[in-house]
Amino acid sequence: MKLKVKTNINNYSVIIGKNLISKINRIFLNEKIYSRKFLLVYDSKVPSKMIKSILSRFNKKRIEKKKIIFNEKSKNLKTVSSIVKILENNNFSRNDCLISVGGGICGDVCGFASSIFKRGLNFINVPTTLLSQVDSAIGGKTGINSLSGKNMIGSFYQPSLVISDIDFLKSLPRKEMICGYAEILKHSLINNKVFFKFLKRNFIKILNHNHKFLETAIYKSCSIKKEVVEKDEKEKNIRKVLNLGHTFAHAYETTIGYNKGLNHGEAVLLGIMSAVEFGRQKKILKKSDYEEIIDHLKKLNYYNLNKYFKSKDISKIIFYMKQDKKNKDSKINLILLKGIAKPVINKSFKENNIKLFLKNLIYR
Amino acid sequence: MKLKVKTNINNYSVIIGKNLISKINRIFLNEKIYSRKFLLVYDSKVPSKMIKSILSRFNKKRIEKKKIIFNEKSKNLKTVSSIVKILENNNFSRNDCLISVGGGICGDVCGFASSIFKRGLNFINVPTTLLSQVDSAIGGKTGINSLSGKNMIGSFYQPSLVISDIDFLKSLPRKEMICGYAEILKHSLINNKVFFKFLKRNFIKILNHNHKFLETAIYKSCSIKKEVVEKDEKEKNIRKVLNLGHTFAHAYETTIGYNKGLNHGEAVLLGIMSAVEFGRQKKILKKSDYEEIIDHLKKLNYYNLNKYFKSKDISKIIFYMKQDKKNKDSKINLILLKGIAKPVINKSFKENNIKLFLKNLIYR
Repeated sequence: MKLKVKTNINNYSVIIGKNLISKINRIFLNEKIYSRKFLLVYDSKVPSKMIKSILSRFNKKRIEKKKIIFNEKSKNLKTVSSIVKILENNNFSRNDCLISVGGGICGDVCGFASSIFKRGLNFINVPTTLLSQVDSAIGGKTGINSLSGKNMIGSFYQPSLVISDIDFLKSLPRKEMICGYAEILKHSLINNKVFFKFLKRNFIKILNHNHKFLETAIYKSCSIKKEVVEKDEKEKNIRKVLNLGHTFAHAYETTIGYNKGLNHGEAVLLGIMSAVEFGRQKKILKKSDYEEIIDHLKKLNYYNLNKYFKSKDISKIIFYMKQDKKNKDSKINLILLKGIAKPVINKSFKENNIKLFLKNLIYR
Repeated sequence: MKLKVKTNINNYSVIIGKNLISKINRIFLNEKIYSRKFLLVYDSKVPSKMIKSILSRFNKKRIEKKKIIFNEKSKNLKTVSSIVKILENNNFSRNDCLISVGGGICGDVCGFASSIFKRGLNFINVPTTLLSQVDSAIGGKTGINSLSGKNMIGSFYQPSLVISDIDFLKSLPRKEMICGYAEILKHSLINNKVFFKFLKRNFIKILNHNHKFLETAIYKSCSIKKEVVEKDEKEKNIRKVLNLGHTFAHAYETTIGYNKGLNHGEAVLLGIMSAVEFGRQKKILKKSDYEEIIDHLKKLNYYNLNKYFKSKDISKIIFYMKQDKKNKDSKINLILLKGIAKPVINKSFKENNIKLFLKNLIYR
């Protein structure tokens, strides 16, 4: 399956399917990738069999490779500098190409490095996790962490091509599949009730790697993100809907410490749950839709915040929520739902309001 | 005088004139700058009187300030990180604003920091040198140096506003005025023969700070750059004409070591001279125009390369020329002239060809 994403700067294809790596030369040709030199940056977690398979399709003289242990701690300027150094030492020109093979962090770091090297190098993203395939690989957001928060440094930079081969997902543990599923669910909630109902019926098949359902879920999820991003590439307005649950989620994962028992997607599920509960409490979200969503979250087992947080954590959570990039003043901005597929943006709330809500949510 | 620059992303004004700092509040209002918080980053070389004058026009609580010693050595990721840190520590949002007050390096570093902070902070550029007013303040190129070359890391990022107050130029030494004049001359050569003749008649008045002629030269120079940049924001093609003389110039200044007796504009004058001589030697540039240009360069006293280089420097010069961002393969790409206001792009030459040319140029 193929999606074409249109942006202000360029158009690029997102290819989704099985067994794509073996066809990579043909894909490059079809997509007019004519670079002379490539740098393959890959995540140490990607099975070496897959990396070998990719490398075998290139003339050895035309490709450099670099393995990096990507995690929230290495998502920083130092890693970016190490990539830029390889590009410089090998005299890469703007018309050469960086290929990222790994999860969201790998893609974010490589995308950022590409965006700043000689003011913009060709960039091909090969996302290898469900999360990155359905979310970060589309939309052109790149970023790294700073001392004070996630993705505080970054750019908007579009890839030349995205190849989402679902063969990479075979080796993913269930927790990682849940992680990607969180964003698929989010896309359904902000845009498409029929898709939400499809997910409710088929989520077990999707999580169990049923090819047909998995490919459909990825394709549909990407289509929704593409539609939103095309309307508002730079997140001036409507694109903010993609942050449903994320103001909570970012604060949750930062409070716990990245990767300590709560991964991004799990934090997003708890974030969606929180936004849905908050929206209902404020009488913004209609009751029947609220119940449908909560029912699904309960089945997924992301309903109880007190498994992860105690009331002593609340001030920390609030601190991080206040640092969210969407905030315009001292209030906290949230994306909420009026109903399924009916998002509301630019709703701001006072800190104390959310503090009290979180307290009740933890002790319900 | 006011220019409006249109880009893919936004439109912004370039205000050129005397005594603009005292009207800064009115200018912000007219230009719809509604930020809540500002960070003023300024070059240590800017007279403190001018900085005080700017600061006095803001509510103290709304503005942070940071003085930096800007030079080619501090034009690096470390300086960018130090600026980002202040933005983070003061919880700046995307809608807040960074104001750069200084020369080209200050603007390049601040523009880059703005482009990567939360994927894009409002950026106002107040260029304080002739060079930055006529060149780098327009066009949205930002950049820093890496170990292996000038501006190897950077982004395309447009400011929200440029204020070019010629009062800043009063304190500039002649060498700095020459430096800016080099780019003014370049703009005339690639675009406008009438303007070139105006410069030939009036360059002494311009270099001696005659307001009327200086303001006209800045405005005209900015108009030409604006015109070119609007046609090709990302330097895919026609924008390359702005690099007339620059492949030589970058190599000259890197070979000598930045700021050691040859500033950027002086290197550009030698670069223009070299491109003009090379174009004539290759019978690309018409004779009468060649003579007119060389006559002017002789009057400016940037005609002899052997004041700066010996033949032992040539291999180093060639090495740096080969690293130019415009090169697509192992050949060296040059911007040349067919005549005044008639630039030619995408001409490539073999390394040995240019080596021999440089040897003859040094020993003429």
